[in-house]
Amino acid sequence: MKAAVVGAGYWGPNLIRSLVSQRSLEGVVVCDKDPKRLELIKTRFPSVDVSTDLDHVLSDRAVEAVLIATPISTHGPLGKRALQAKKHVFIEKPLAGSKAEAEMLVELAERNDRVLMVGHTFEYSPPVQKTRAVIEAGDLGKIYFISMMRVNLGLHQRDMSVIWDLAPHDFSILFYWLRETPEMISAFGRDCVQKNIPDVAFINVRFPSGVIANLEVAWLAPSKLRRTAIVGEKKMLVYDDTENIEKVKIYDQGVNFKDPESFGEFQLSYRTGDIVSPRISSAEPLMNEMEHFLDCIRTGKTPSSDGRSGLRVVEALEAAETALKTGNPVHLSPKS
Amino acid sequence: MKAAVVGAGYWGPNLIRSLVSQRSLEGVVVCDKDPKRLELIKTRFPSVDVSTDLDHVLSDRAVEAVLIATPISTHGPLGKRALQAKKHVFIEKPLAGSKAEAEMLVELAERNDRVLMVGHTFEYSPPVQKTRAVIEAGDLGKIYFISMMRVNLGLHQRDMSVIWDLAPHDFSILFYWLRETPEMISAFGRDCVQKNIPDVAFINVRFPSGVIANLEVAWLAPSKLRRTAIVGEKKMLVYDDTENIEKVKIYDQGVNFKDPESFGEFQLSYRTGDIVSPRISSAEPLMNEMEHFLDCIRTGKTPSSDGRSGLRVVEALEAAETALKTGNPVHLSPKS
Amino acid sequence: MKAAVVGAGYWGPNLIRSLVSQRSLEGVVVCDKDPKRLELIKTRFPSVDVSTDLDHVLSDRAVEAVLIATPISTHGPLGKRALQAKKHVFIEKPLAGSKAEAEMLVELAERNDRVLMVGHTFEYSPPVQKTRAVIEAGDLGKIYFISMMRVNLGLHQRDMSVIWDLAPHDFSILFYWLRETPEMISAFGRDCVQKNIPDVAFINVRFPSGVIANLEVAWLAPSKLRRTAIVGEKKMLVYDDTENIEKVKIYDQGVNFKDPESFGEFQLSYRTGDIVSPRISSAEPLMNEMEHFLDCIRTGKTPSSDGRSGLRVVEALEAAETALKTGNPVHLSPKS
Amino acid sequence: MKAAVVGAGYWGPNLIRSLVSQRSLEGVVVCDKDPKRLELIKTRFPSVDVSTDLDHVLSDRAVEAVLIATPISTHGPLGKRALQAKKHVFIEKPLAGSKAEAEMLVELAERNDRVLMVGHTFEYSPPVQKTRAVIEAGDLGKIYFISMMRVNLGLHQRDMSVIWDLAPHDFSILFYWLRETPEMISAFGRDCVQKNIPDVAFINVRFPSGVIANLEVAWLAPSKLRRTAIVGEKKMLVYDDTENIEKVKIYDQGVNFKDPESFGEFQLSYRTGDIVSPRISSAEPLMNEMEHFLDCIRTGKTPSSDGRSGLRVVEALEAAETALKTGNPVHLSPKS
Repeated sequence: MKAAVVGAGYWGPNLIRSLVSQRSLEGVVVCDKDPKRLELIKTRFPSVDVSTDLDHVLSDRAVEAVLIATPISTHGPLGKRALQAKKHVFIEKPLAGSKAEAEMLVELAERNDRVLMVGHTFEYSPPVQKTRAVIEAGDLGKIYFISMMRVNLGLHQRDMSVIWDLAPHDFSILFYWLRETPEMISAFGRDCVQKNIPDVAFINVRFPSGVIANLEVAWLAPSKLRRTAIVGEKKMLVYDDTENIEKVKIYDQGVNFKDPESFGEFQLSYRTGDIVSPRISSAEPLMNEMEHFLDCIRTGKTPSSDGRSGLRVVEALEAAETALKTGNPVHLSPKS
Repeated sequence: MKAAVVGAGYWGPNLIRSLVSQRSLEGVVVCDKDPKRLELIKTRFPSVDVSTDLDHVLSDRAVEAVLIATPISTHGPLGKRALQAKKHVFIEKPLAGSKAEAEMLVELAERNDRVLMVGHTFEYSPPVQKTRAVIEAGDLGKIYFISMMRVNLGLHQRDMSVIWDLAPHDFSILFYWLRETPEMISAFGRDCVQKNIPDVAFINVRFPSGVIANLEVAWLAPSKLRRTAIVGEKKMLVYDDTENIEKVKIYDQGVNFKDPESFGEFQLSYRTGDIVSPRISSAEPLMNEMEHFLDCIRTGKTPSSDGRSGLRVVEALEAAETALKTGNPVHLSPKS
Repeated sequence: MKAAVVGAGYWGPNLIRSLVSQRSLEGVVVCDKDPKRLELIKTRFPSVDVSTDLDHVLSDRAVEAVLIATPISTHGPLGKRALQAKKHVFIEKPLAGSKAEAEMLVELAERNDRVLMVGHTFEYSPPVQKTRAVIEAGDLGKIYFISMMRVNLGLHQRDMSVIWDLAPHDFSILFYWLRETPEMISAFGRDCVQKNIPDVAFINVRFPSGVIANLEVAWLAPSKLRRTAIVGEKKMLVYDDTENIEKVKIYDQGVNFKDPESFGEFQLSYRTGDIVSPRISSAEPLMNEMEHFLDCIRTGKTPSSDGRSGLRVVEALEAAETALKTGNPVHLSPKS
Repeated sequence: MKAAVVGAGYWGPNLIRSLVSQRSLEGVVVCDKDPKRLELIKTRFPSVDVSTDLDHVLSDRAVEAVLIATPISTHGPLGKRALQAKKHVFIEKPLAGSKAEAEMLVELAERNDRVLMVGHTFEYSPPVQKTRAVIEAGDLGKIYFISMMRVNLGLHQRDMSVIWDLAPHDFSILFYWLRETPEMISAFGRDCVQKNIPDVAFINVRFPSGVIANLEVAWLAPSKLRRTAIVGEKKMLVYDDTENIEKVKIYDQGVNFKDPESFGEFQLSYRTGDIVSPRISSAEPLMNEMEHFLDCIRTGKTPSSDGRSGLRVVEALEAAETALKTGNPVHLSPKS
């Protein structure tokens, strides 16, 4: 089996780097319409084949897997071509630029019995997986709320809002952790740098179980922030992806009442119970993700981040974008 | 001149501690209806006089300053009595439990020509003052947005929402920095622990200048968080009150475009320009605040956090509380 | 019982503050030869009595406890006068300026059957006590080595080296944790700012059990550092006194061999096992210390940091100072 | 020009990864006596040639550069063979296992007019280079002392002490910054885990200029520590290689005297002046190093970390090892 990577721009080279070290692959083909970019790819990865002709790549029967890392607006059309050519398809997040396109891809993959996987890379990241394990073991108790920050060093996109650029990560992580989808999404934000391209947004999410979440996504930030706090009935967990040493910390804590009748002192306490930072594997998420994709092709398993997972995230993105534009909350029907 | 502290509960002893070391005062009287609490106060501060009778305290002509540190619902009535007795009055934040009461206090103070000051302590805190100086020097350029987190170790109040408990700090800081008041406030939250007492809220604020802010206030948190990020056109500033060494940091940074045409590498950069953490005085905010109050009484100056400042904050709190209850944004007319 | 504080300079006011809130005391007398300083004390602590005459204070039979917070060179003579007057005596660290004086104080206290306690405040600090509990529970396994840093913001003393100023803390903590005294001490350092006053020193210590320690003490430092790492056979512990939230952290960790035969990757791992930061009481060390002193007087218990403890530390300081001057290690006979 | 990497064990693959992306090279040959390891290399880097026969590799005239990444004891003999074959030679740190061997390599390279470079990688690391620039601009003033910590997660070597494993980094960095070599080295340490293999050492170094340094090197540590503090007359600098965001920080600070006559308060200040964290390039040190080596071959320039630099470090390592064994300081004659 060979794999083809379509799109050798910003993210493609990372996929290529991962794929060339997969021993189960007989070869990697890279397809891009720009020959100069392909030349660079050859310099860096001399073992790959390159092509500017997607039809030619898709007609190669040895190419069973196609990985799409192109601008969002082309995810739908290119995914469709690859699925129609009976390839197993991996598409970078978000799955497509609209709910309609995402649904089309899901249906086409199911009809053709092909693997369709979306690049929700964080679902393959050890700290995110550890956090799900902690939640599902009941260590935190009932979840009350989740506060997420994903803010970047001003790497601006020219063609989409910060919601479509950064929130796919947070939505996919939230749905992966909670195993439910929102009933309500509202959003508040601003286009600070380029007119009509929101570059900061605060997104509120309410789930059927009662859990609420606040997502702060921004391109303009003092420093890279990747901080998520999950507050539960029994314990609380902080996941900070910019930390080297303690990416996940679990805080033991009860609820105290500040009794207005008590004789108090200036409160100096900064915490209450123990704090535990569990050991986390240092495996690379992208490598885990690529292995999972190839494994699903070989075994017929449904990917953890399958087409339906991609569709749920696209639906949430559309809702957040609409809420931001109209100023009104968007109500959704929960998805399985 | 003597000063009287009314209310020897949670916060009162901090005011007493500050006042007993003010050399300009001839004495401090503490008034509380609970004699046991007064006994404790005498043990800790043997030099103060105590009384359970507010009328008696207010009739003492040597008592020119009255400081009220009682539950919020009593701020209005007690403030009124003190002002009617022609005292200069300091009231703990928030100024009052409703806009109507706050307006009454402001009018009464103006009519009687007395100093009315509200305990927006952070306006007297060196890092908050330094931040205003940085903003006003133009170092950050035009402000784009502000993200504030104030989350606590589960010190629950029984009689009011987390908005009335914690957001007075953030609103007073915001208005102090920006010198404007909101045109719109919306809020999203939940009552996790006690029914009908919201203990987590995400508040969105829009100012006439276009600046937006997001306030996260919560009683339930993994650890005390006091983090504010101000993102401006030129630079960004982070103020973290839980930091010992670097409470204020200023980040130099431009805006970069992630060009989809460029040949990229996995982005490892965590920051761009220099980071500067300016020297901050270690003076105690409460001490600064008490000195300012006594100084305003002596000189007739208007306090930095005067009654009108307190009224603006109360109005914002009412709006946030309404927005939280109704789910709809509240539009306000900007105040001077 | 009354207590008298002798010396109202740099540290004395902290003792006074602690003592005036001790309900078991009937009164506090402050003695200093400088009347101006006593005036300041009266302003801050109106309830205390003051005197410039030590003989007068020592002749007051109600004064059973005397606390000495004067320059080191006077600890011996003043301690002697207080013990001869049959007072229970607390002396700030180090107990005395020489081994001979320290021995004299210990003998005098034993002969007169009085409590003699030295102000090794850190032995009363919750994180230091927690660390001893962790060691004694065997959680760390056999201790291998201890690395301590105590560096300060350039608060220079004019009359003694950084060793006498800062190392009493580290020696007292080490002896408290390990329950043994050194067999060898060597030292290396420099007088950077004032000729003949060493302001940075690296002290090596070897204990009979085989444990070794390195102490870095300096007045000149980029920021206050108070970091101690204890490396044991099973686990390791870091105690950082400048941390607000996680003063003590325990690291689970095994020993791995870097096998030169293995096929390696660039090592990205920053840690191995879990990290636990146990809950630590936020009680104030000085308050604990004062309560312990008064309790020992009342009950006749031997203080945890008694005269012999002070003597052991003075002996280590003398050895370190000698080692620094001569460049040669000093060998000691272990003490009980 | 082709390059040959000798040794495909722990570090070799990192050199190979760097070299295959160097466009100025026509090819990379990897030589190892173990065919299995070469197979793995082919899987990961399909474009390289492999060989188990060093003579064959050295006889290839296209191979102008030879990079040696084998166990330390073989650096001398293998380096000699490569230099005798008229190759330009790069040897991983330390240059050789003894001063005599290092001298032999230096002489041989000079006689044959070949480039001899040692892999003091940190000299090619942006924060280390930035620190030298800050020192040489005089920003810190006269340097007083340097405190270095390099402690690792228990990756033990079986055949050498922690001094030979970790201290080459610190010595090379120190000599690179200060442009001088020590006049005295002493050392203190212990073999905690394996008999006769010291795994923790505290090394004291004195330079002719008066600067002193303390190096803590250990394999057993709670977490990876890479912290260096440079204290100067005017400012101080901290370089922490485990930090993502602020690897280098410069602290503005004066010297204050703690006047025993002043009336003090409990000292709460944690710092004095401004702190600046300058922007640091995120270039990879190893890539810089490989480019520099190839550039020196092409241009005839002397490498920054040339053979003499390697010799100076080996001499310091030998002195530290001797000092550790004998317990006595070793005096050295400064080198150019």
